Amino acid sequence: MKATAELQVIPLGSEVSVREEVRRAVQLLHDRDLILETHASGTNIEGELDEILAAVKLVHETLHQEGSVRLLSYVKLETRSDKVPTLVAKRL
Amino acid sequence: MKATAELQVIPLGSEVSVREEVRRAVQLLHDRDLILETHASGTNIEGELDEILAAVKLVHETLHQEGSVRLLSYVKLETRSDKVPTLVAKRL
Amino acid sequence: MKATAELQVIPLGSEVSVREEVRRAVQLLHDRDLILETHASGTNIEGELDEILAAVKLVHETLHQEGSVRLLSYVKLETRSDKVPTLVAKRL
Amino acid sequence: MKATAELQVIPLGSEVSVREEVRRAVQLLHDRDLILETHASGTNIEGELDEILAAVKLVHETLHQEGSVRLLSYVKLETRSDKVPTLVAKRL
Repeated sequence: MKATAELQVIPLGSEVSVREEVRRAVQLLHDRDLILETHASGTNIEGELDEILAAVKLVHETLHQEGSVRLLSYVKLETRSDKVPTLVAKRL
Repeated sequence: MKATAELQVIPLGSEVSVREEVRRAVQLLHDRDLILETHASGTNIEGELDEILAAVKLVHETLHQEGSVRLLSYVKLETRSDKVPTLVAKRL
Repeated sequence: MKATAELQVIPLGSEVSVREEVRRAVQLLHDRDLILETHASGTNIEGELDEILAAVKLVHETLHQEGSVRLLSYVKLETRSDKVPTLVAKRL
Repeated sequence: MKATAELQVIPLGSEVSVREEVRRAVQLLHDRDLILETHASGTNIEGELDEILAAVKLVHETLHQEGSVRLLSYVKLETRSDKVPTLVAKRL
């Protein structure tokens, strides 16, 4: 099942700037079979739902391994049965 | 890896009341190995991250099979490496 | 116009535990003319939309005055024209 | 106080496509004194916090006046005391 999503990852107990962790998260997403659009409030994602969920898990696992103590993710997920959801089709 | 989460599922193109779909989603969550706290803005979840993500997928798949055309999920996910995250510990 | 909402405030650049800031935010909400239900992923709110939005602003202003450098709020807002939205009516 | 934000408005009880309401919401935002970046999961906003909150209220009021029965908004709000928050500065 294809899906579109938005992912924003927030490390707690880090610095005021969380750019380092956010950059690493986006880098991890780029290594997956996903279409990405990064913007000021997160990264929009298009791909298989399984692959999106696996990527979210990978981001948490990897950032923890690299030192993040506490991680919050805000995920918007969209699926539809009438047509294949794409980021392009969601443009106004 | 254990996690806590909040899931809110919204069907688009349904009625003004989406109670039927929300009840079904919560019922599907109850069939999984998860601790749940349902409230007015979603359902708080505690369990294995894998199990939480699998439950989100199951909710989308099942609601589509049962007629929902378009589904949005709003998911908050939290993991931490310093202790096991629980819903109880997040109470003020 | 009446509304229901969920508010979760996250301070960045604070400790791994953000309980102090979250408690203060909830305390500020309690001083307003709002119905509140605090849970593990935020605080559900019922009241006038104006009052809810003013409370969100007050939380940001006050926490900054008290030392928070960077604040993220995640707000879910709901309004409806067919009946008065309440937290009680959103229970399953 | 300046802020950055993300706003996504979802009408319930509408069609599977909610493009009409989303376009109208973005149009209402464009009439305000705000910097906007529309993307697949919402619209990023930069401006005075008061102006952002007033715009959220205006969107709900106007869409209800124009026929929407039930509206959900998902709002991410960010403020900081160390520098003026901008959308440009949040680019990776």
